[in-house]
Amino acid sequence: MPYRAPVSEFRFVLDQVVGMDQVAATDLFAEATPETVEAILSEAGKLCETVLAPLNRAGDLTPAKLENGVVRTSPGFAEGYKAITEGGWVGMAASPDHGGMGLPMSLTTAVNEMIGSACLSLQLNPLMTQGQIEALEHHASDAIKELYIPKLISGEWCGTMNLTEAGAGSDVGALRTKAERNGDGTYAVTGQKIFITWGDNDFAGNICHLVLARLPDGAPGTRGISLFMVPKFIPDENGNPGKRNSLGVVSLEHKLGLHGSPTAVMQYDGATGWLIGEEHKGMAAMFTMMNNARLGVGMQGVSVAEAAFQHALAYAMDRKQGKTPLGATAIVDHADVRRMLGQMKAETFAARAIALACAVAIDMGRATGNADWQARAALLTPIAKAYGTDIGNEVAYLGVQVHGGMGFIEETGAAQFSRDARVTAIYEGTNGIQAMDLVGRKMMDGGTAAYRLLQEIEDHASEARASLADLAGDVWAAAEALREATEWLVAQEANDRNAGAVPYLRAFARVLGGHYHLKAALADASRQPLAAFAIKRLLPEHTALIAQMREGAAGLYALTPEALAS
Amino acid sequence: MPYRAPVSEFRFVLDQVVGMDQVAATDLFAEATPETVEAILSEAGKLCETVLAPLNRAGDLTPAKLENGVVRTSPGFAEGYKAITEGGWVGMAASPDHGGMGLPMSLTTAVNEMIGSACLSLQLNPLMTQGQIEALEHHASDAIKELYIPKLISGEWCGTMNLTEAGAGSDVGALRTKAERNGDGTYAVTGQKIFITWGDNDFAGNICHLVLARLPDGAPGTRGISLFMVPKFIPDENGNPGKRNSLGVVSLEHKLGLHGSPTAVMQYDGATGWLIGEEHKGMAAMFTMMNNARLGVGMQGVSVAEAAFQHALAYAMDRKQGKTPLGATAIVDHADVRRMLGQMKAETFAARAIALACAVAIDMGRATGNADWQARAALLTPIAKAYGTDIGNEVAYLGVQVHGGMGFIEETGAAQFSRDARVTAIYEGTNGIQAMDLVGRKMMDGGTAAYRLLQEIEDHASEARASLADLAGDVWAAAEALREATEWLVAQEANDRNAGAVPYLRAFARVLGGHYHLKAALADASRQPLAAFAIKRLLPEHTALIAQMREGAAGLYALTPEALAS
Repeated sequence: MPYRAPVSEFRFVLDQVVGMDQVAATDLFAEATPETVEAILSEAGKLCETVLAPLNRAGDLTPAKLENGVVRTSPGFAEGYKAITEGGWVGMAASPDHGGMGLPMSLTTAVNEMIGSACLSLQLNPLMTQGQIEALEHHASDAIKELYIPKLISGEWCGTMNLTEAGAGSDVGALRTKAERNGDGTYAVTGQKIFITWGDNDFAGNICHLVLARLPDGAPGTRGISLFMVPKFIPDENGNPGKRNSLGVVSLEHKLGLHGSPTAVMQYDGATGWLIGEEHKGMAAMFTMMNNARLGVGMQGVSVAEAAFQHALAYAMDRKQGKTPLGATAIVDHADVRRMLGQMKAETFAARAIALACAVAIDMGRATGNADWQARAALLTPIAKAYGTDIGNEVAYLGVQVHGGMGFIEETGAAQFSRDARVTAIYEGTNGIQAMDLVGRKMMDGGTAAYRLLQEIEDHASEARASLADLAGDVWAAAEALREATEWLVAQEANDRNAGAVPYLRAFARVLGGHYHLKAALADASRQPLAAFAIKRLLPEHTALIAQMREGAAGLYALTPEALAS
Repeated sequence: MPYRAPVSEFRFVLDQVVGMDQVAATDLFAEATPETVEAILSEAGKLCETVLAPLNRAGDLTPAKLENGVVRTSPGFAEGYKAITEGGWVGMAASPDHGGMGLPMSLTTAVNEMIGSACLSLQLNPLMTQGQIEALEHHASDAIKELYIPKLISGEWCGTMNLTEAGAGSDVGALRTKAERNGDGTYAVTGQKIFITWGDNDFAGNICHLVLARLPDGAPGTRGISLFMVPKFIPDENGNPGKRNSLGVVSLEHKLGLHGSPTAVMQYDGATGWLIGEEHKGMAAMFTMMNNARLGVGMQGVSVAEAAFQHALAYAMDRKQGKTPLGATAIVDHADVRRMLGQMKAETFAARAIALACAVAIDMGRATGNADWQARAALLTPIAKAYGTDIGNEVAYLGVQVHGGMGFIEETGAAQFSRDARVTAIYEGTNGIQAMDLVGRKMMDGGTAAYRLLQEIEDHASEARASLADLAGDVWAAAEALREATEWLVAQEANDRNAGAVPYLRAFARVLGGHYHLKAALADASRQPLAAFAIKRLLPEHTALIAQMREGAAGLYALTPEALAS
């Protein structure tokens, strides 16, 4: 079952659901006309269908290997990477100042979804580089920018991000990697980093590691951390890869999924690094990179969901088993199989719309400098990340279920989607941490950004009542319930908010999903059955989620570790 | 992190929650005194902790292999199997007439849970044999019983069940395997079967295949199917393995999980078989085996849930990351981690209680012949199977999440639980088919068995109001909502019931879970926090589930395959 790029679906969601026209109306993104969008999506879609999707299984079966300190990538990955770079896809969103296309995130995010559907483990490579480019654009010196960004955009060099250490995962501030001033403006970086995605490969001319480390006079915790560019090969006077830096891959992880993506333990032994941004202010630069990556990872969830859905639907339309209510037809006509496929499609649509709405907000924030748009983007980012990756896992799970016993057999391919998707709910900040970001940092405005969004949803539902009274009424009521839940939430202590963070985020995603489905149904009547599925069968969950949120922290701590262990 | 057998938990659930005392009060199971139960659980628990649990990872890393037509099992599995047989655990529930212990299913089910927690892929082997013993006890001729059952009970021989074919999975009646009368009372069986669990091994003296096939005059569909005993080695006049039968393993599947359990494609080429039961009545005998196996598979879900929970809790109590609200303690003290662990424990308790309540009903039905107990067992079986395996997957998923990035690394072991658990929601009838059994066959009494159970739940909740008013009130109201949902359900057309089957089953499990947690909290005040978690945070989901159920089939079919594919 080959992957089919959902180009027309992207066009519909961008144009009719998330308001991409506003982006194209700005000076910054004036080039993103409907014609350009169509051309770009079609071109990227073709690459994904014909070149990248055929690599997905080979990457799973033949994982990247470490041989004598060199990472050997999966069969075909070098060619796939080359095709991605030749299309210019790495630098889509990068500034034209250094050779980027300067296209909006809304379009980049759509293209990234397709690349991820085709081959998620390869897609991680340019995704990391894109994050690095953005961090450098915002925080690096001109010299660094001019040296690195064009080569990252062209794909000649790749970028990685090095945060995690064995004792410093979610708590980045606990890191132990050290940096010392060499006296010549460079730094010597020493330490070990783990879980480094695409920590090395055999197809790029250089690997540019952005590494978090602490200077001798750095304060403990996150405030004393600095960010360094530590390239595998130190650029010579012409900017070409020169002397080998004192760093290397210690080992590659044996992972549940994403076998084609080498996840490295990296060792730095006084490796030469260049400061990015100011000393002790590394977290700010890293956050730029992580924010970008969070939306990118959320979209990875949608990538897997779309691919798993297409795969399961094709099977369900082909597999005959038993007599269905429509006769001796394929299993897609059994009610419960239709239910599973409907849920897969409804969740995928909702998560894609949320992620693209987030991307539109990022674009509008950049193009206009408007604080409301920036707050909207900040609010939607953790939801896009957590909900997108949650449903990536749920849809892949259902995809296996649709296959019945065949789903458990690796050759079928359904199980790979589940294995590959699993880590997306964990990396770039676990989904629990995303939820805590939503109820914590993103509610420091007292809920203003949330209320503004809910007001838009209610206003839209009120308008929609004229033609879709039942569905619109449900969306309006759910938005109102979420508003009340938000009012409750912002009045709580931090840990009561944290206790309810995950159910609150999911309730928020349910309401947003209902809203976007309603918009879709209004714009195109053929989408009403899917909207009805989402609003009548899935949206009602918000009530139980809000009830769970309101339970607070005390009940959780009443369940002591001793009681749990007994 | 070693597995710890939850012996005292079993004692509590059996004694205080599911009414095992009634079983021990019958003549048939008079030997199952509290002392015997304690001794058996302790003995089995020791075996699981010390002998079987250490095999689990080796089975995953070194899958069973097919070499020159012979299955080579994973390292240590032969010794593990020997230990299981020497303990007499295969024939725990089998009749003493042929060497079984004649113990109740409630106890066998508990022991099977522990063996499954320790090493699920090995546990499948005796589970299949147990099902075969039961089928033979009910349907085989005396000669077959005397020849096979003692050797199956001793573990000298193993049993398998052969239903599935490439074109006949959920639709068993579509099978093409043929049987012809040899004229000497035996039959010649020809065909290919797939997904045959433990289709062969290198430690048993014989493999006894129960094979479904159609005689030349067998009607199409399930009514024309007969069941045959087709042994790998044809027993000689002394009942010892003699001539090799014309059957063999074609290949083993490459599966997502359960690597230690060889899943075979079996080929029968005029293999000699003996009829079990009557000609054309094979499905009845097979259903005996499948009913037993359904509860067994439901308990496999609990097995994985318990093991994954213990594994995650140990990690959470050890791993330090960030400052928690209780200070610089382990991650178990972060609210969201506590929430995940609470959910894991609450679901595991509920699924175990449902499965053991089902086993008690089976025991009471057998011991008393009472039709109400039999109807109770029939009603609870699909719930125990589907909910137990659903939460097996959900708890294993949360277990990975608690581990953060380490959960994605295979060496940690958290991911194996997810991979192993996956198929339990599929085999022995997918969970969708379980739900259709619940809303179909199990409601052919007009809901009588369901209403009787709900009445008991409401009566208990009414009594519990005196001491636990809040929790009891919620359980009572949820049971009442489920009663109304059941009244709606039984009045619908078949396909509207099927459309709502999965959410209805889950709502039923939620109410049962609330009920058993309430019983536990009443019996032991230290269990109130867990009961409150289940009742205040999880039980509210029943409302949304019932709302989804009521949507019926029309909306699903409005979502056409064309709309899904567009």
